[in-house]
Amino acid sequence: MGQNALHPSGAVGAPVRRVDADDKVTGRARYLDDIVLPGMAHAALVFPGVPHANVRGVDDTRARSVEGFVATVTAADIPGENQVGCVDRDQPLLAGERVRYSGDAVAITVAESPTAAREAARAVALDLEELEGVFDAEKALMPDAPRVHEGDNAYLQYRVHRGDVDRGFDEADVIVERTFRTNYQEHSYLEPLGALAVPEDGGTITVYGTMQCPYYVQKAVAGVLGIPLARVRIVQTVTGGGFGGKEDVPNEICACAAVAAWRTGRPVKLVHTREEDFYRSSKRHPMVVRYKLGATRDGRFTAADITIIADAGAYSTLTPVVLFRSVAHATGPYEIPNVRTDGYGVYTNRQTTGAFRGFGQPQTIFADESVIDEIADTLGIDPIEIRLANCLAVGKRTATGQLLEESVGLPETLEVARDESGWLAKRAGESARAGSDGRAEPGGASRPRERFLRGIGVGAIYYGVSLGAKGLALDASGAHLNLYRDGSLRIAVGGTEMGQGLLTVLSQMASDVLGIPVASVHVDHVDTSVVPDSGPSVASRTTLMTGNAVIGAATKIRRTLAGVASGELGGAPDEVRFEKGRALSNGKSIGIEELAELCWVRNINTAEEGWYAAPESTFDDNGQGDAYAVYSFATQIAEVEVDSRTGEVHVLRMTAAHDVGRVLNPVTLEGQLQGGVLQGVGMALYESMKTDGGVILTPDFSTYILPTSLDTPEISCHAIEAPYSKGPFGAKGIGETPAMPGAVAIANAVAHATGMRFTELPITAEAVRLRLAQEETA
Amino acid sequence: MGQNALHPSGAVGAPVRRVDADDKVTGRARYLDDIVLPGMAHAALVFPGVPHANVRGVDDTRARSVEGFVATVTAADIPGENQVGCVDRDQPLLAGERVRYSGDAVAITVAESPTAAREAARAVALDLEELEGVFDAEKALMPDAPRVHEGDNAYLQYRVHRGDVDRGFDEADVIVERTFRTNYQEHSYLEPLGALAVPEDGGTITVYGTMQCPYYVQKAVAGVLGIPLARVRIVQTVTGGGFGGKEDVPNEICACAAVAAWRTGRPVKLVHTREEDFYRSSKRHPMVVRYKLGATRDGRFTAADITIIADAGAYSTLTPVVLFRSVAHATGPYEIPNVRTDGYGVYTNRQTTGAFRGFGQPQTIFADESVIDEIADTLGIDPIEIRLANCLAVGKRTATGQLLEESVGLPETLEVARDESGWLAKRAGESARAGSDGRAEPGGASRPRERFLRGIGVGAIYYGVSLGAKGLALDASGAHLNLYRDGSLRIAVGGTEMGQGLLTVLSQMASDVLGIPVASVHVDHVDTSVVPDSGPSVASRTTLMTGNAVIGAATKIRRTLAGVASGELGGAPDEVRFEKGRALSNGKSIGIEELAELCWVRNINTAEEGWYAAPESTFDDNGQGDAYAVYSFATQIAEVEVDSRTGEVHVLRMTAAHDVGRVLNPVTLEGQLQGGVLQGVGMALYESMKTDGGVILTPDFSTYILPTSLDTPEISCHAIEAPYSKGPFGAKGIGETPAMPGAVAIANAVAHATGMRFTELPITAEAVRLRLAQEETA
Repeated sequence: MGQNALHPSGAVGAPVRRVDADDKVTGRARYLDDIVLPGMAHAALVFPGVPHANVRGVDDTRARSVEGFVATVTAADIPGENQVGCVDRDQPLLAGERVRYSGDAVAITVAESPTAAREAARAVALDLEELEGVFDAEKALMPDAPRVHEGDNAYLQYRVHRGDVDRGFDEADVIVERTFRTNYQEHSYLEPLGALAVPEDGGTITVYGTMQCPYYVQKAVAGVLGIPLARVRIVQTVTGGGFGGKEDVPNEICACAAVAAWRTGRPVKLVHTREEDFYRSSKRHPMVVRYKLGATRDGRFTAADITIIADAGAYSTLTPVVLFRSVAHATGPYEIPNVRTDGYGVYTNRQTTGAFRGFGQPQTIFADESVIDEIADTLGIDPIEIRLANCLAVGKRTATGQLLEESVGLPETLEVARDESGWLAKRAGESARAGSDGRAEPGGASRPRERFLRGIGVGAIYYGVSLGAKGLALDASGAHLNLYRDGSLRIAVGGTEMGQGLLTVLSQMASDVLGIPVASVHVDHVDTSVVPDSGPSVASRTTLMTGNAVIGAATKIRRTLAGVASGELGGAPDEVRFEKGRALSNGKSIGIEELAELCWVRNINTAEEGWYAAPESTFDDNGQGDAYAVYSFATQIAEVEVDSRTGEVHVLRMTAAHDVGRVLNPVTLEGQLQGGVLQGVGMALYESMKTDGGVILTPDFSTYILPTSLDTPEISCHAIEAPYSKGPFGAKGIGETPAMPGAVAIANAVAHATGMRFTELPITAEAVRLRLAQEETA
Repeated sequence: MGQNALHPSGAVGAPVRRVDADDKVTGRARYLDDIVLPGMAHAALVFPGVPHANVRGVDDTRARSVEGFVATVTAADIPGENQVGCVDRDQPLLAGERVRYSGDAVAITVAESPTAAREAARAVALDLEELEGVFDAEKALMPDAPRVHEGDNAYLQYRVHRGDVDRGFDEADVIVERTFRTNYQEHSYLEPLGALAVPEDGGTITVYGTMQCPYYVQKAVAGVLGIPLARVRIVQTVTGGGFGGKEDVPNEICACAAVAAWRTGRPVKLVHTREEDFYRSSKRHPMVVRYKLGATRDGRFTAADITIIADAGAYSTLTPVVLFRSVAHATGPYEIPNVRTDGYGVYTNRQTTGAFRGFGQPQTIFADESVIDEIADTLGIDPIEIRLANCLAVGKRTATGQLLEESVGLPETLEVARDESGWLAKRAGESARAGSDGRAEPGGASRPRERFLRGIGVGAIYYGVSLGAKGLALDASGAHLNLYRDGSLRIAVGGTEMGQGLLTVLSQMASDVLGIPVASVHVDHVDTSVVPDSGPSVASRTTLMTGNAVIGAATKIRRTLAGVASGELGGAPDEVRFEKGRALSNGKSIGIEELAELCWVRNINTAEEGWYAAPESTFDDNGQGDAYAVYSFATQIAEVEVDSRTGEVHVLRMTAAHDVGRVLNPVTLEGQLQGGVLQGVGMALYESMKTDGGVILTPDFSTYILPTSLDTPEISCHAIEAPYSKGPFGAKGIGETPAMPGAVAIANAVAHATGMRFTELPITAEAVRLRLAQEETA
């Protein structure tokens, strides 16, 4: 980590050990599937086998004879509303009338074991009238394409229109226009989707599950059961990764389990196999991005014209919020005076697409950062120089016209990444000589081809932290803190830990506010019965929003303690300091433990509610406004080696420089960065979910290729601290950005190495070999 | 119920159906023993078999060969402190060095089943050096009595000294002095003690259990494990009765389960059989009360001199708070200018004694109300008249010198009970003629003896609500309310439902404050990780304290809603009314549901913390001060028929008139009254735990005799409403008082019927027959 990472004076900034590390490495952590309850039954979903059909009948006669069969649940058994659409109301929980993709569940079977439930599910006979499907978003736009829902397949549109794009291109000396395509990317979290629904006392239900967004689940479950939110308690279990894939899909899983539990009166567990998870979970949107950028001779961007077509799959799910973000950020982190971005969300009969780390941006970043490199090449300007010349900084305006007033560390990320990677030398081909293995120098494209070609490439990004203008109603978070009489603190929050280290950084923050050791703090996983709706744990918002809520509540408690301390020690309450387990005032000190006990003895409450609401944000019909309160920025530089014989690309080194506002914990931050960088490697080179109509050809990790430890480059991480005045200790989001600039940096490095630009991801060995062969031929 | 009971305008005062009724009658309610977890082991306790011994060794060699044996846990295995003393630190969790009563646990065995655990426990060989024991509190006072602990057996003393007692007796025209004795009474809750301890993520432990006081348990578990309170979560399960018996004893049960779980790393359940429960649970204190009362000729009480000796059993447990209450209230609800009350708590080698409905008062009430009747008889004054002449009222002072300023409904309880029972006629023997079965008239004592003798008697009491001066540090309560966007409300509280109807009355209160239906409210059982330490659920404090906390939080939420409503409707926020699901202002209205949704959309927090702390109270070294913030009052009148041949006493009718401040729910109130009255019947006539040294001769319900439905009299309940200005909707406590005046009313009725005064309870058929025979002989 960079030199600014360590703040040895308190817990915040220190490399505090993850509070959940021991549980995870010892196996004590209790994941959803570890929970077993007496009388528990198991559910399985009845899949249609086809991607588009009318449902004429569901016959469970054969299923009933499966040993251990308990019940079949169909759409008719849903006591509330058969609807789980997260933004748009277009998605039945059970496809009772129409199947729109091969992951649709037509019915649920319940049995005494998961095996029996699946056997029963397979034994349910569906009477389906197959319909022609559409499996390509561009084809779905055609007037004669099959309709997935009532109305146009292109059901959703956003725009950012700014300035005069035509005039902007007139002013340009160079214009590059390309069309980019990206495929589905699977979240590939370690723990598949799962839920356990338990009917409880008082007509309530508790649903346990692996999830990012318990409040979404609460709403979905209350809706399908037709009961008040107060009777639905959602408890997040230790969650083995999410990456966006557990934002909305757990609504469906949990609602299925809940309906089955309600119907049978028993606890019902529903856990997906990996293959079911592939079929049923949402993915990163396949996108087509047409990108046209103009620049003056000296490298100033004059205009961008961008069209984004996003394949939503069969249901809208989170496409509205993902596409909003794609469109808002499509120009990349640059000031461009004239912008026309149009984004379209299109239904197809494919797997649904939703949130995935980067949230609709890696696809457009692939486009903008590729085109910028081409313009730089054309103008003979160094790619980092052209970025520095155009990039956002304090006092500049985004494509939505937002004036940036603070916390813009982008230029520094470019400079640090450049300097730390040895960019200038490597880009010029003056260093990194082939080693004793005879491998090549960088910049190989400009010289006669050798077997191993090296290149270096860059990607820069910005990311509006939290939900912004299209999610404002969701954008508040709560916390509930309970300081016990022994000075230990229990924290309940509405933001979820899914592996990112939230529990740890929240513990650090509370520790510093109250001057107590991190070991005295315990943070619980989310329970919706305790903390009010805190919105989703997505969009790099959780540390910021939940952190501020925790700080708010801890500050109230500190104020209470300060009053007691000043009474005991003298001095003004406002001037009491809290450090290392003691409160200091008037030259004297008292232990926080003693203070807490004094509060207890005196009946002074030391439990407090924290609440933080996002600042106002705006986005008008032309996409103009202060779309987000603050942005995170990052630059990643990739160094690759391309085997010109096999086409394989090896990423040798990634240099990641991220403006995080303030480093809360260098270790968990580095974990976030390394993981995200590797997801970028996967997106760039390996990950490609192949489908054929409704069939997923790569429904597991033997066919869907992820980068392994052997594919992991050296990753050099650097934190830039451009503090955000409203962030917790100055921090802003880090969840999303690590996965964003890497893929295009690799693509740009491949271009640098080979001289060939790829406009589709992943850049597989086959694709490289094919292009190399084509070039040889040409 | 009386005519004031119904308040048809809102939920409060209405006979709202118990919110937990359906679960309980359908069997859906999940009690502790219903919980089964994967990997769960079972614990049993190793009892010493003797009541007093030094422990020289614990050998589990034979236990280890029991099939399913998991572990033996001894005092040496306790990671924290081997101490669970609730008030005084005199009680080891495991009696590793010395056994002080036959219910002491020397070790814990853990096995795969409860049967195996008990078999293993029996197979543990203890090397004990038996010591002489002491089994009578009066004998324990003697200088040569065996010592139960270091120091005197009479380890505890309280006094209330007021005025000049000698002069008071000089002024008296009549003085009566008697010594009264009461025995152990068993709580006889339906559900025996039980706990399930579960080691959880993050070095935390969750303990589920049937209990009244989760915060006591939290402290006990943290102490024996040596971990911070923030890592100990206590969840109260549906609790099948408490009556004081689950105030402190669950600390021991839960701590045993916790230590076993910590040691084995597994969930461990410990559930007592009824016999184990008899051995191990606390009881009502056997007391010896020497009571001397003087009165003038016209019936004015001039002085009282009272000595109370309470058998604490082997450990102090709750004796300090119980004895405090006995001493503070020993004169009964009367103004007596000169008082000398001295109370002593004495260790013996018997079962421990602690909280039991009435909390140390039924024993002294038996004394004071018996003596008053004797004085009345002597002076020829009607017992109710003499009580009315001396009783507390607004403007009078208690024995602790406290001036009563409001909410003293005692005179009205006397009058209502008198009038509703037909007292005057029955006391005079002018009514209730023997029916066609030839049964006798009342007042039989004054006439030649017939087989069936009828009598009518009265008892009046007062009860300091909540903890008062000796429990002030514990006397605050919290609540946490979460209004969801659909207008439904979830409430978390620190007070426990143990059958008394708390969940229901809290729902009613919140319903009225927010104008939402009771059906939109759900109240959870206590979870110490959510609500701050709210003290114990004892001493008639829970409705008052928790109710005020709920009202406090609900009022904050209403203020928030009112602000939004006035913005939508016009009008001042302070004038918005909340009724029947709507907010009304400016002649218009809006649904609470819509208001809640508006708050959600606008990121306005609708979760709030409530907190209520008891007013200051005082009690100096002479027992003078404002001992309690407010008192509840009650009169019960008993009508009995004594079979002079068998000695059996049948209670025909009980008339209960209780000043409750305000009736919150006439149905749950009547439930409280009926149950308490029946406990009074049990104490008066049947319940007698017989012991022989360390052996309980009546360790189950075939030998320990409870009143059954066949012994249940007609119970006529009347609520008096003398509102308490600081009570929730004017209410004050009702939990304890129903069980208090009944026993002595029955004793006084027996005296009325037979002319014989009994100074020991219970008045068994054998005792009556013996006395009748003695009289015949004499």
